[in-house]
Amino acid sequence: MHRETWTKVESTLLLQDIGTGIMETIGTLKYDKDGLIPAVVQDSATGQVLMLAYMTAGTLQRTMKTGQTYFWSRSRQQVWHKGETSGNVQEVVDIKLDCDGDALLLLVRPAGPACHTGKMTCFHNTVASEASQ
Amino acid sequence: MHRETWTKVESTLLLQDIGTGIMETIGTLKYDKDGLIPAVVQDSATGQVLMLAYMTAGTLQRTMKTGQTYFWSRSRQQVWHKGETSGNVQEVVDIKLDCDGDALLLLVRPAGPACHTGKMTCFHNTVASEASQ
Repeated sequence: MHRETWTKVESTLLLQDIGTGIMETIGTLKYDKDGLIPAVVQDSATGQVLMLAYMTAGTLQRTMKTGQTYFWSRSRQQVWHKGETSGNVQEVVDIKLDCDGDALLLLVRPAGPACHTGKMTCFHNTVASEASQ
Repeated sequence: MHRETWTKVESTLLLQDIGTGIMETIGTLKYDKDGLIPAVVQDSATGQVLMLAYMTAGTLQRTMKTGQTYFWSRSRQQVWHKGETSGNVQEVVDIKLDCDGDALLLLVRPAGPACHTGKMTCFHNTVASEASQ
């Protein structure tokens, strides 16, 4: 569990439905044993799935506070503000939680490509497809 | 690592780009220490993200062979043919791999709702959204 320091904050995003405060919402998600929850990132305008990344309670809090995506880099073991270096930040439009509370879907407006290769999506390798395609 | 038995098979889906056989493709993905790789499932017609589930090499092989989605149920610790009980199978249109090889995106035609609650998508809980929405 990554025990980042996080405190009561005001969110730039409106809390919905859950009927709880931001801290309670963040606290009740099902994180894995490393304190991570997977987050699917989708372009809110095109519907394209851009990437899959992982959040801690702390980076989710920061995402909700700032309205931009923050993740936990598993390779670098540190907080990762998407676009901090490239400028390709992602503005968050909507945050959804799945039915069993262990995965997030973030709808975003990306300022540029999601992938470090320069492609809009990280899912740019086709493994297999229908014969008719 | 879930060591299911899997053998050389013909795929109902056409292998693309990777320049390798199906077994090599399946074998070279980056599975986690439990032998799992996360798979985002997206409706190929509507673009709606339906669910996030996990595959083993064996369930990916079965998915490619049959053209329907098979996952590994972490809660039940067994192979899970999506729709086996409900009839809401998912026909696979396309399988994408992300840039670092540790996540899959499956475009599917769902025969019905993805969620056990009867909703089309498992991501039906809104946590937060833009004030303007």
